Amino acid sequence: MRDSTYSGLKRAYGYDEVALVPGAITINPDQVDITLALGDKTLEIPFLASAMDGVVDSRFAIAMGRLGGLAVLNLEGVQTRYEDPRTVLDQVVEASPGEITSLLQRIYSEPIKERLIGERIREIKAGGALAAASATPTTALHFGPLAAEAGADFFVVQSTVTTARHVSRTYPLLSFTELRQILRVPLLVGNCVSYAPALELMDTGIDGLLVGVGPGAACTSRQVLGVGVPQVTATISCAAARDHYFKSSGRYVAIITDGGMSTGGDICKSIASGADGVMLGSPFAQSQEAPGRGFHWGMATPHPALPRGTRIRVGVRGTLEQILFGPTSLTDGTQNLVGALRISMGMLGARNIKEMQQVDMVIAPSIRTEGKAYQIAQGLV
Amino acid sequence: MRDSTYSGLKRAYGYDEVALVPGAITINPDQVDITLALGDKTLEIPFLASAMDGVVDSRFAIAMGRLGGLAVLNLEGVQTRYEDPRTVLDQVVEASPGEITSLLQRIYSEPIKERLIGERIREIKAGGALAAASATPTTALHFGPLAAEAGADFFVVQSTVTTARHVSRTYPLLSFTELRQILRVPLLVGNCVSYAPALELMDTGIDGLLVGVGPGAACTSRQVLGVGVPQVTATISCAAARDHYFKSSGRYVAIITDGGMSTGGDICKSIASGADGVMLGSPFAQSQEAPGRGFHWGMATPHPALPRGTRIRVGVRGTLEQILFGPTSLTDGTQNLVGALRISMGMLGARNIKEMQQVDMVIAPSIRTEGKAYQIAQGLV
Amino acid sequence: MRDSTYSGLKRAYGYDEVALVPGAITINPDQVDITLALGDKTLEIPFLASAMDGVVDSRFAIAMGRLGGLAVLNLEGVQTRYEDPRTVLDQVVEASPGEITSLLQRIYSEPIKERLIGERIREIKAGGALAAASATPTTALHFGPLAAEAGADFFVVQSTVTTARHVSRTYPLLSFTELRQILRVPLLVGNCVSYAPALELMDTGIDGLLVGVGPGAACTSRQVLGVGVPQVTATISCAAARDHYFKSSGRYVAIITDGGMSTGGDICKSIASGADGVMLGSPFAQSQEAPGRGFHWGMATPHPALPRGTRIRVGVRGTLEQILFGPTSLTDGTQNLVGALRISMGMLGARNIKEMQQVDMVIAPSIRTEGKAYQIAQGLV
Amino acid sequence: MRDSTYSGLKRAYGYDEVALVPGAITINPDQVDITLALGDKTLEIPFLASAMDGVVDSRFAIAMGRLGGLAVLNLEGVQTRYEDPRTVLDQVVEASPGEITSLLQRIYSEPIKERLIGERIREIKAGGALAAASATPTTALHFGPLAAEAGADFFVVQSTVTTARHVSRTYPLLSFTELRQILRVPLLVGNCVSYAPALELMDTGIDGLLVGVGPGAACTSRQVLGVGVPQVTATISCAAARDHYFKSSGRYVAIITDGGMSTGGDICKSIASGADGVMLGSPFAQSQEAPGRGFHWGMATPHPALPRGTRIRVGVRGTLEQILFGPTSLTDGTQNLVGALRISMGMLGARNIKEMQQVDMVIAPSIRTEGKAYQIAQGLV
Repeated sequence: MRDSTYSGLKRAYGYDEVALVPGAITINPDQVDITLALGDKTLEIPFLASAMDGVVDSRFAIAMGRLGGLAVLNLEGVQTRYEDPRTVLDQVVEASPGEITSLLQRIYSEPIKERLIGERIREIKAGGALAAASATPTTALHFGPLAAEAGADFFVVQSTVTTARHVSRTYPLLSFTELRQILRVPLLVGNCVSYAPALELMDTGIDGLLVGVGPGAACTSRQVLGVGVPQVTATISCAAARDHYFKSSGRYVAIITDGGMSTGGDICKSIASGADGVMLGSPFAQSQEAPGRGFHWGMATPHPALPRGTRIRVGVRGTLEQILFGPTSLTDGTQNLVGALRISMGMLGARNIKEMQQVDMVIAPSIRTEGKAYQIAQGLV
Repeated sequence: MRDSTYSGLKRAYGYDEVALVPGAITINPDQVDITLALGDKTLEIPFLASAMDGVVDSRFAIAMGRLGGLAVLNLEGVQTRYEDPRTVLDQVVEASPGEITSLLQRIYSEPIKERLIGERIREIKAGGALAAASATPTTALHFGPLAAEAGADFFVVQSTVTTARHVSRTYPLLSFTELRQILRVPLLVGNCVSYAPALELMDTGIDGLLVGVGPGAACTSRQVLGVGVPQVTATISCAAARDHYFKSSGRYVAIITDGGMSTGGDICKSIASGADGVMLGSPFAQSQEAPGRGFHWGMATPHPALPRGTRIRVGVRGTLEQILFGPTSLTDGTQNLVGALRISMGMLGARNIKEMQQVDMVIAPSIRTEGKAYQIAQGLV
Repeated sequence: MRDSTYSGLKRAYGYDEVALVPGAITINPDQVDITLALGDKTLEIPFLASAMDGVVDSRFAIAMGRLGGLAVLNLEGVQTRYEDPRTVLDQVVEASPGEITSLLQRIYSEPIKERLIGERIREIKAGGALAAASATPTTALHFGPLAAEAGADFFVVQSTVTTARHVSRTYPLLSFTELRQILRVPLLVGNCVSYAPALELMDTGIDGLLVGVGPGAACTSRQVLGVGVPQVTATISCAAARDHYFKSSGRYVAIITDGGMSTGGDICKSIASGADGVMLGSPFAQSQEAPGRGFHWGMATPHPALPRGTRIRVGVRGTLEQILFGPTSLTDGTQNLVGALRISMGMLGARNIKEMQQVDMVIAPSIRTEGKAYQIAQGLV
Repeated sequence: MRDSTYSGLKRAYGYDEVALVPGAITINPDQVDITLALGDKTLEIPFLASAMDGVVDSRFAIAMGRLGGLAVLNLEGVQTRYEDPRTVLDQVVEASPGEITSLLQRIYSEPIKERLIGERIREIKAGGALAAASATPTTALHFGPLAAEAGADFFVVQSTVTTARHVSRTYPLLSFTELRQILRVPLLVGNCVSYAPALELMDTGIDGLLVGVGPGAACTSRQVLGVGVPQVTATISCAAARDHYFKSSGRYVAIITDGGMSTGGDICKSIASGADGVMLGSPFAQSQEAPGRGFHWGMATPHPALPRGTRIRVGVRGTLEQILFGPTSLTDGTQNLVGALRISMGMLGARNIKEMQQVDMVIAPSIRTEGKAYQIAQGLV
């Protein structure tokens, strides 16, 4: 029974509602440390690419690895359903808005070829990059070992909402503890948005937690299902669980904010909310290396009965290197994301990611409503 | 006398301001129970169709019953004023925006034919569906028995705001206790939006309470009269009254959130706010079975001196079955509403409606302002 | 020195942020009492028309009086500067947007003819209506007696902000106590928006207080000067002062919310905030009787050095009777304002204005953001 | 570790969210004192012009000085990089939107000619105005003495965020104490937005503090870096530090709110938040005297790797005198800024800047959402 005065409802915050506040120290950007420890490995930059078919294929994963980040390959997408995914991606790119959802529903009804799982992983390894692959909870025990055998360095189990306790009459509960022991590679699990479920998941022995339900560009979970928590609050909650778990267990589980970010500012706010790294879809879908060639769609979009999200045109806006490291002539915060993180950390006086997690943050009106002058400048008034 | 610091004003919330938060358990969607007990009957799905002339006629009511829900026939609309309502509905559909309000004012000045009340109910029963009919407080004592005699399974008394204590010099106070005893079928009364009036109405012996003043698509009560409470708060308040009343009396009165919902997300939030079921207008007006053929108007629209609301074009977007059960290729949450409810309950770990009423809810920025990426995707930026 | 945590800033509310909540009683609209006592006179309806040149001339004042309300004639506008104001109003109506402000600056630089003050008052009295006239604090002692002698029933002293203690080296402080004793007719003073200044003004012996700084349609004080308080909060504050003053002195000073309202809903919210009556500009400027013939401008617009506000086109939308009493086919709340007030009071269970001042009010999201359905209906999505 | 309930996030406010509240006294505008003491000098009006290349050159600085204010010349912009900046400014004005950022990046890669520093200062002094010049922390120790020798009356050290403790391996920490002693002219430093860093900066002996990170029209720091605090809150925080510092040290450091203001209302709110003066970019870029001829760009725009902000077209809207003193026929608050400040102070009963810093301020809905009437007037509905 809810309180009739509904005073129990807490406020959750998204990127456009907060801002970071400089402190008493500033640091030269080239002196900040932004590495991310993930299990027994360390990434040079705290950026992961989402397991989405418009973003990651073997070629993209290799490029991402070369630049110091990590791309996650979706084991239940076109890359493992089709020998030659390129033809299928051609269809997606060329479909009209009216036919796209039913086309995607049809494309994703093609069965997964297990043989292709190992093949894709080996392509990435052959390119010299760390390989990461993802499956859903129902297939993880089956696909995980195939990926690990082929040399995957990380395994990811991901669904819209994942908990340590799933109730089903149809299939047995997936034990992350057991899966971690079988695979013997760092295990990332998601998605999750609140304190208690995050704690339970960490307790199963996972190495990283993906944070975010419903925030991404290609997802409409909140509209269709009412479910979702804005990313600033979701990250703060899960990071608090991480800190609590670290204190009691001595084991540090990485928090990766997943989705909903499109600018350097959003990324900085995720880390300031407590994230150790970020996982991006749309920003990377805009790279020349992305298989979607300027298009992007969520993995819930092809749902046969209740598609959530749709294909969106993000455009091809530069190389992956430009998007991550610049230089750029764009001033909207969508390129040189690593440079933005470094400069922001410098302005805020954060020597490393741990210090960036402690910077001061305020609730502030959206950038879009601050100042008449700004709006005049933007042609909004 | 109000406090000069106006600290006494409480905040009320609508659908776009809240979001549902996953917990520590998830459940397979096919394992959740969504039935709704209403008096001595049980509906397979907790969906009612509003007593509006663009939504419900006998044919629609039969289709709705077949799919497990319940449609309410308006006893003071065109179905009982006209032998052949189809001709009148043709005029409504064809009228220009400039002439529609005065046309509706004229159409609804035609007297009600009492004979048609029984006839419409019998048509529904003949189709094999449960029959529900509604009247306003001033006509309820007169029309109610006619409907019950003809076989109505439920009776609904509805006006913009209904209380147990109406003051009038013109006509005697309607006693719901008395009406309930005369009719001997479950009685639903509305609309109501707050705790104390809800308690008083429950105390009269009613079986269900309709919640909502001013939120619907075809209503402008808040603009014209200043009166209205957003549905999340209205539902929380009335559900708290239901729980209190159940504790003290042992009798459970169903809370039906009525109006203002247009997506699966809105419906899920109503139930998470404490509703046992929902009553929808616009979403069903979009079905092929609806008599309004893509048009929809409120029952306060034809008010002779102060019309509130207008005819709106909602379009014909699918069969009633598609709207309720899918499958769909629409990704905006307007179809497969039952599927959305099941999947949402699964993600939130709610085994049944009672558990769904307890899930965690946060105040969160509107889906329309979360994330630049989302907006780019929607062409908003 | 402000608190560095700025926790001292209080929140103020406007019409679009609040809504009225039905209680446990409802009343037939024809049984509610909406009269307004103003000094020793009583108006049948609690509506005043603003002392603005696009709204009130003698002819309008007579029409307003006949319908039970009161119009205030501006003694420093075109009616007293020009023998034949009609020619001047023609120019205002016909001016292009680019030239209007400088035209108004020129028109209002014409000297006031004292002889016309009495003439205009007598015209109104000859029409059988109560006559009210307004001047600014600097001219009040001079024009007030002229108006009173000519038979004015009420006198109004009005400037953007008026206090009991004005500091000036150029002219002596106007004593409202003295002015009231000289005129011997009810004295209304404004504008005011907060508790303490309202109390001081009441203490000078005035009969009514006009509430509102910066809210009107034809005013841009908040943008130009940063000054202004939204009307719901301003009315609550001044009404609290009235109640406090009544308790300590036994004298009841009417609170008239002035400006910023355009729908029945806004008017109902003003009274629910504590007002005894309302003063409207824009809604009446839309009447056939208004001298502005569909145009409206603020009295700060012609300011020679810093014009605030501009001429706006409101259109001619009906007779004054329709606007006040209907019937109407408009559903946006701009017509049948008296009917709206009665119906709203009935729904809220308020037998009279005093009870309407006590109804429950909540902070609620704007009607424009509640519900996707509403927006679809309005073509907003 | 952040609180998992994120109750620690404080709310920050911008101009559109607050409004000023009249008190119990009003004053004639011609009787208010608006002078600003800055070090050992006094400005007649508390207005500074930003060190931006579209705003200030020698000619503009002379005009500004003649009108009682102070313009700051940017020592690292086109005026010191080019013998004849006019040719370069021609290119900026004529560039297409697509090429502007890379053009600016190229223009600002031209080396600074030290000889031009003295020459520009002497031009301003020759025009009879007070001269002020600005440099960044890395060049201040080098350029400062050159400017002082040439006769500069004020020196400004400015970067996006400046603190008393900058960490760098590349260059030594700039000591403001030392710089102040070398220059022997009043030293202004910025930008800063919060209490503790403001206190530390004041403690180094500076004479004025520039407040504002990310609010200006030509800046996108918040979007790109996530960093920024809305100006009302930033000013309140820094002004609280000033008052605390004054109490403990007896030395008064001027607070200058820098950027984000475009109307008289915004300026009045800055001072009501605690500022002693304001520094404006866009409003002055609109003057006939500004070198940008209707265009305006931020000094972070030409950043070679991560440009923030862009060139915006503000238009040429009047002489500097009109913008500052009127008269005007514009009603949007962008002209007669001094008049607006005086009238606002009069309405609020503030005899001088110190009293204006104490007026009552409330959080209030944006002027753009108050009242349907306003919106109808603005063509927003």
